[in-house]
Amino acid sequence: MKILFIGDIVGKIGRQAVKNLLPNLIDRYKIDMVIANGENAAGGFGITEKTAAEIFSFGVHVITTGNHIWDKKEAVPYIAKENRILRPINYPPATPGAGSIIFTLPNKEKIAVINVSGRVFMNTLDCPFRTSKAEVEKLRESTNIIIIDFHAEATSEKIAFGYYMDGLVSAVIGTHTHVQTADEKILSGGTAYITDVGMTGPQTSVIGIEKEQIVERFLSQMPRKYDVAGGKGLLSAVVIEIDNKCGRATAIQRLQLTNP
Amino acid sequence: MKILFIGDIVGKIGRQAVKNLLPNLIDRYKIDMVIANGENAAGGFGITEKTAAEIFSFGVHVITTGNHIWDKKEAVPYIAKENRILRPINYPPATPGAGSIIFTLPNKEKIAVINVSGRVFMNTLDCPFRTSKAEVEKLRESTNIIIIDFHAEATSEKIAFGYYMDGLVSAVIGTHTHVQTADEKILSGGTAYITDVGMTGPQTSVIGIEKEQIVERFLSQMPRKYDVAGGKGLLSAVVIEIDNKCGRATAIQRLQLTNP
Amino acid sequence: MKILFIGDIVGKIGRQAVKNLLPNLIDRYKIDMVIANGENAAGGFGITEKTAAEIFSFGVHVITTGNHIWDKKEAVPYIAKENRILRPINYPPATPGAGSIIFTLPNKEKIAVINVSGRVFMNTLDCPFRTSKAEVEKLRESTNIIIIDFHAEATSEKIAFGYYMDGLVSAVIGTHTHVQTADEKILSGGTAYITDVGMTGPQTSVIGIEKEQIVERFLSQMPRKYDVAGGKGLLSAVVIEIDNKCGRATAIQRLQLTNP
Amino acid sequence: MKILFIGDIVGKIGRQAVKNLLPNLIDRYKIDMVIANGENAAGGFGITEKTAAEIFSFGVHVITTGNHIWDKKEAVPYIAKENRILRPINYPPATPGAGSIIFTLPNKEKIAVINVSGRVFMNTLDCPFRTSKAEVEKLRESTNIIIIDFHAEATSEKIAFGYYMDGLVSAVIGTHTHVQTADEKILSGGTAYITDVGMTGPQTSVIGIEKEQIVERFLSQMPRKYDVAGGKGLLSAVVIEIDNKCGRATAIQRLQLTNP
Ligand SMILES: [Fe+2]
Ligand SMILES: [Fe+2]
Ligand SMILES: [Fe+2]
Ligand SMILES: [Fe+2]
Ligand SMILES: [Fe+2]
Ligand SMILES: [Fe+2]
Ligand SMILES: [Fe+2]
Ligand SMILES: [Fe+2]
Repeated sequence: MKILFIGDIVGKIGRQAVKNLLPNLIDRYKIDMVIANGENAAGGFGITEKTAAEIFSFGVHVITTGNHIWDKKEAVPYIAKENRILRPINYPPATPGAGSIIFTLPNKEKIAVINVSGRVFMNTLDCPFRTSKAEVEKLRESTNIIIIDFHAEATSEKIAFGYYMDGLVSAVIGTHTHVQTADEKILSGGTAYITDVGMTGPQTSVIGIEKEQIVERFLSQMPRKYDVAGGKGLLSAVVIEIDNKCGRATAIQRLQLTNP
Repeated sequence: MKILFIGDIVGKIGRQAVKNLLPNLIDRYKIDMVIANGENAAGGFGITEKTAAEIFSFGVHVITTGNHIWDKKEAVPYIAKENRILRPINYPPATPGAGSIIFTLPNKEKIAVINVSGRVFMNTLDCPFRTSKAEVEKLRESTNIIIIDFHAEATSEKIAFGYYMDGLVSAVIGTHTHVQTADEKILSGGTAYITDVGMTGPQTSVIGIEKEQIVERFLSQMPRKYDVAGGKGLLSAVVIEIDNKCGRATAIQRLQLTNP
Repeated sequence: MKILFIGDIVGKIGRQAVKNLLPNLIDRYKIDMVIANGENAAGGFGITEKTAAEIFSFGVHVITTGNHIWDKKEAVPYIAKENRILRPINYPPATPGAGSIIFTLPNKEKIAVINVSGRVFMNTLDCPFRTSKAEVEKLRESTNIIIIDFHAEATSEKIAFGYYMDGLVSAVIGTHTHVQTADEKILSGGTAYITDVGMTGPQTSVIGIEKEQIVERFLSQMPRKYDVAGGKGLLSAVVIEIDNKCGRATAIQRLQLTNP
Repeated sequence: MKILFIGDIVGKIGRQAVKNLLPNLIDRYKIDMVIANGENAAGGFGITEKTAAEIFSFGVHVITTGNHIWDKKEAVPYIAKENRILRPINYPPATPGAGSIIFTLPNKEKIAVINVSGRVFMNTLDCPFRTSKAEVEKLRESTNIIIIDFHAEATSEKIAFGYYMDGLVSAVIGTHTHVQTADEKILSGGTAYITDVGMTGPQTSVIGIEKEQIVERFLSQMPRKYDVAGGKGLLSAVVIEIDNKCGRATAIQRLQLTNP
């Protein structure tokens, strides 16, 4: 089976890129399932019921998120009940929303997705390594096909997590830095890995935001409002090919497409 | 002219990869000058006179560094006097060593190199934006060909710095994360840019270190000794093509080569 | 001469405590000049023209601030032109507002005040040590009486700064942690020092905020709105006695008063 | 009953201060039990079997620690088996050593001690709030007298933790910043609280270290070796008075004594 994983969708330009480019991608790569990180879908910060509905309507099956998950306060009740939107699983036990899902395709194939956050230079959550391992053990009772979105900053934490999960899951896909890395590979245990899949948003920007605004921020050190940049959209993604029987990945391919 | 920039050389495996692969690279790409980041050259942490001499002997003209520059205390006097080794320029004014160099090739062509450190999730140094801009203005009196090694963690700071320097320098090459990014490009003002060139060291490792050691560190949260991993070497680099007259970059190409 | 330094004023309860308690304090301790940190004066976050005017009307001569200085965007033009409000001096050169002031009392005595921010666990500003020393050298041409508000988090940075400034200024008064420390002293060179003067705001609170809200934040790790707590006010301050001739401090006394 | 809690003992000067001053303190305040934080006992960094034995020999019953617990690698097996030395309880489950103890006095009175670490600006451990609460519930089956050493940096986290534990334990005593705070109090539920008890070590120093070394570190931003400062010792502590029947604190008193 083939899974398309789309990196952090930023604002309207990111959503438009998914809308315009996804149908053709699904067709061309014979994609069975689409996962997308949507933590920046709503104006660059957070996700709302409306933006999530839009993303689902384009053909995305499961939306993962990250540290921006709670940016839109009004969306908390929605996140709490919509089980196709994940928030990092290593938030405290009583946190609204789900950290994993077992998604069933029309052909009855079951794919588990886990969303987990790193801790280095990030929020002080529960241990991503232990939390994820416990969850994987539970999910493997239902399916061998497990995809993890590891939303983290430090390359050391991401790579270590990949090796830690190698052989236990089908793929560890890094998100959060908004820059695609060129280190996609199949680890020796059969886990597809990439440090960061990159973002889906304005091509000419600083991780999605107007570049002048971020430069000014670094120069002045004064807080300011940020706007999602304009211009052309970039879609960053990976295609993961998985052996349905055992859940092992057989291929991972990076994509960066411009929305003309 | 063509410049080869080699990412953070980690330990003996990294140095061996340079030794074995560099001659052929110089030949194949008709490289005029070689710059390499050497902050992890000596056992993964810092650089020494011996490891630096070795790297220079392979054909590297200028060595840049980063946050690990002072790891080997005995090397400080050497760094202080060897002007072909750079330490980040935004250390305080009285810091030993140089933050930039104007290097003259046999054909009299002058290439300026600046090494600068980011501040997000890094040491509390002087502003990299202001410090670099002032240095660029000085260096441009001598040459239009200026290469900056921006040693930084956060993608936002690196990309913003790239745009800030666009049109003022020939290239902004990111280092420090040890993972090559797939966002190499020529910015509109003619500056070649990549968020991170990646590392040159053991291919199967966590940013150069034995993977089991780093995984154990994340699981136990206890400090421990780290060893550079064994196995095959990986060389990560970019080739930058520059118009000698105006200093504008015309091409940037990523390389990842295995040392068999 | 005697200077009263009042710690971070938090919200209306903090301002009321100053209003009600200051006249008696001035009288009782024969205070010549009053300095107050006002970075939390407006609803706990930042300062406005209105809250500053109120604080000045109570008898405060100079208001210092810290990392919350820019929280109220509408106040930036006011801060830019009101030289009795200081923002940390180690912001970049072009930053609105002043980082120091030479204030002249009715009796012609001149007192210099500097506001500077630490960098450990704080914003990435210019070096507080170098920036302050350069400013002190300039100010000493006008007066020997210099008070520094060092707005910082880490005790190591604050104490080191105190020793660094010992003999150069009359007092180094720490702010930012909102908890008064019991280490007030006169250093050997004649500089009065305290790691933190403490805050002026709701007595039963977590650094000024409703305690339930902060506890919930730590439990849930989810962002939320914070409100200044209610209840009785606490005024935290120090009285510094200075030898007018040489600028050396001769005494420093901690105060914590409840606003009944 | 009366418990003396001694703040972070730093090096030989700290140990000497305990040796010389403790007998008289026990006598004068009729102390039943002595707890001391020993994370800096061995040359400022960590604790060893020898320094711990020395501290126990002075009359300390239980030693707590913090982030420096693992600084002396050779001590790990000792820490693993000596149950009177605590390491923060919120390390991962398999961590060597104990995070709490129920200590029985000669008069059969049982006192529980918990050591826990904060997470703000500290290591990425398990949630101190949840972990401590669960432990308190277990310990209360054996005794009502529970003392917590909360080893943390941020005043907000420490104060919030105090309120969170109010009514559940006899005392929350903050450590780690090495500066005694002047906010000791009995919270409304009967828990004695202080943000930081302060350190026990060289009086003229930067949190125990030679002041010139730390100043130089801030000026140069270069790593260096640190030495525990010389000179007179300072002992920082609190005396907590507890109602044996219910475990509620009735008084908390700060002490700062010089070792002449
Ligand atoms: Fe993120
Ligand atoms: Fe994102
Ligand atoms: Fe680095
Ligand atoms: Fe490196
Ligand atoms: Fe502050
Ligand atoms: Fe404040
Ligand atoms: Fe300590
Ligand atoms: Fe500590």
